[in-house]
Amino acid sequence: MAIPDEQIFPHATGAAAETVQKHQQPQDVIFYAGWFCPFVQRTWIVLEERGIPYQYKEVNPYKKEKHFLDINPKGLVPAIEYKGNALYESMILCEFLEDAFPEAIPRLYPSDAFERAYARIWIDYIAKSIVPAFFRLLQGQTEEKRKTALDDFVKALGAFADKVKGPYFLGDQFSLVDACIAPWVVREYIVVEHRGHSRDLAGVNWKVYADLLEKRPSVLKTGSEHYTEIYGRYLRDEAQSEAAKATRSGGVIP
Amino acid sequence: MAIPDEQIFPHATGAAAETVQKHQQPQDVIFYAGWFCPFVQRTWIVLEERGIPYQYKEVNPYKKEKHFLDINPKGLVPAIEYKGNALYESMILCEFLEDAFPEAIPRLYPSDAFERAYARIWIDYIAKSIVPAFFRLLQGQTEEKRKTALDDFVKALGAFADKVKGPYFLGDQFSLVDACIAPWVVREYIVVEHRGHSRDLAGVNWKVYADLLEKRPSVLKTGSEHYTEIYGRYLRDEAQSEAAKATRSGGVIP
Ligand SMILES: N[C@@H](CCC(=O)N[C@@H](CS)C(=O)NCC(=O)O)C(=O)O
Ligand SMILES: N[C@@H](CCC(=O)N[C@@H](CS)C(=O)NCC(=O)O)C(=O)O
Repeated sequence: MAIPDEQIFPHATGAAAETVQKHQQPQDVIFYAGWFCPFVQRTWIVLEERGIPYQYKEVNPYKKEKHFLDINPKGLVPAIEYKGNALYESMILCEFLEDAFPEAIPRLYPSDAFERAYARIWIDYIAKSIVPAFFRLLQGQTEEKRKTALDDFVKALGAFADKVKGPYFLGDQFSLVDACIAPWVVREYIVVEHRGHSRDLAGVNWKVYADLLEKRPSVLKTGSEHYTEIYGRYLRDEAQSEAAKATRSGGVIP
Repeated sequence: MAIPDEQIFPHATGAAAETVQKHQQPQDVIFYAGWFCPFVQRTWIVLEERGIPYQYKEVNPYKKEKHFLDINPKGLVPAIEYKGNALYESMILCEFLEDAFPEAIPRLYPSDAFERAYARIWIDYIAKSIVPAFFRLLQGQTEEKRKTALDDFVKALGAFADKVKGPYFLGDQFSLVDACIAPWVVREYIVVEHRGHSRDLAGVNWKVYADLLEKRPSVLKTGSEHYTEIYGRYLRDEAQSEAAKATRSGGVIP
């Protein structure tokens, strides 16, 4: 039987549609993507930032088609096939692109070992503190749950923003930390419109940083319209994605 | 008021006590550790495997002393201070040691970008599937919860073990994947004695692999007795560590 999430708007729109059009030719990097997915957008931003040639393939990950499960047994986008080998997990893909294409400019990780570890600490923070709070806020169905989630979300954004060296997280250069958080900046308006959030709530540092990130060309070029169709199911707590189910049951977001 | 977890056996015993003794001299790498902590043991294994000079400092992370919070604002062990800079998060520390000490032999990550990404996928799997199931199993207070957790734990170990190339996860060489899982092999006996688990339940691949890992010198040298004193609080679901609280409330293990 079809699960509700199978009925998604089938392709990118707006600026992202043009980007998809430009990346239809076969390339060594095949990028399995869902236009709507924030995790996908991270890797997509990196591909665009670094000008790595890639072929975009739209996948509906909720359909769990055999061909795609052969690429990613977890059945999640993003995934990359590279010379016959498959990899997945958005941030692992971003690091893979750093390692496999050292000649692509700019590099998005600092070359210093300490600085790189520091960047990873904040990427880990986004995964553990910001992303789960965002899903709890979206899916919260009672006043109390929403209040707690909004509080967690705003605090997590604020603590993160206080570490921004400016203008980007690590300083002058856009880095993987910025690529990791940017898709949530793009989707922040959903919780502004539906959950009483506002960019100012998280403090001026967040506002300045988020306003800058959403104007970054790689972020704009990978952004679609129609996110609301996707997130409506989260707002009504009807989504059946792995992330939605984990958020509902208190499990680990995959 | 003292939280129960503050009353821990204060220092390493058995083989680990000797290792601690040998690492009291000042060094560039100051290793803030808790003898009992599985996350600490990962980084400790890496330090021992690669012969990196380090100074061991025992910390009781439950006390959240100011000096330690300056090193790691999350107040968790392990942490490393290196030439005046502080870092934390066990696997980020392991990667940092790879990057900062490229000359230390052996390296524990493959040099190929694809292989390295593949290793990271399974390290991520340990964090998302094996570790949370272990805590749920420890802390489960009803038959039903324990049954579900044991099932999850055994399935996660089995799926992981099926990917072991042998004898180690990536093949001939011990790697960061092995260092990441080894502390749970060392502590598996607790759920064997108290939760009806057995190494065989997870299949022969797991048994062969786990039996090998626990004999690895770096694993033995960083292992203590007295784990039971620590885990008794988890078994009675009285522990007040961040991991225990997250497991209880369905939150994210920090
Ligand atoms: N941790 C993964 C998460 C990826 C993820 O959850 N992708 C979603 C779409 S946004 C998906 O493929 N969902 C399919 C499903 O949940 O069944 C990553 O960072 O790549
Ligand atoms: N994700 C962290 C987890 C570290 C952790 O939870 N350490 C525990 C001891 S095993 C701790 O310091 N707990 C103190 C607390 O929970 O207050 C890592 O991998 O380093």
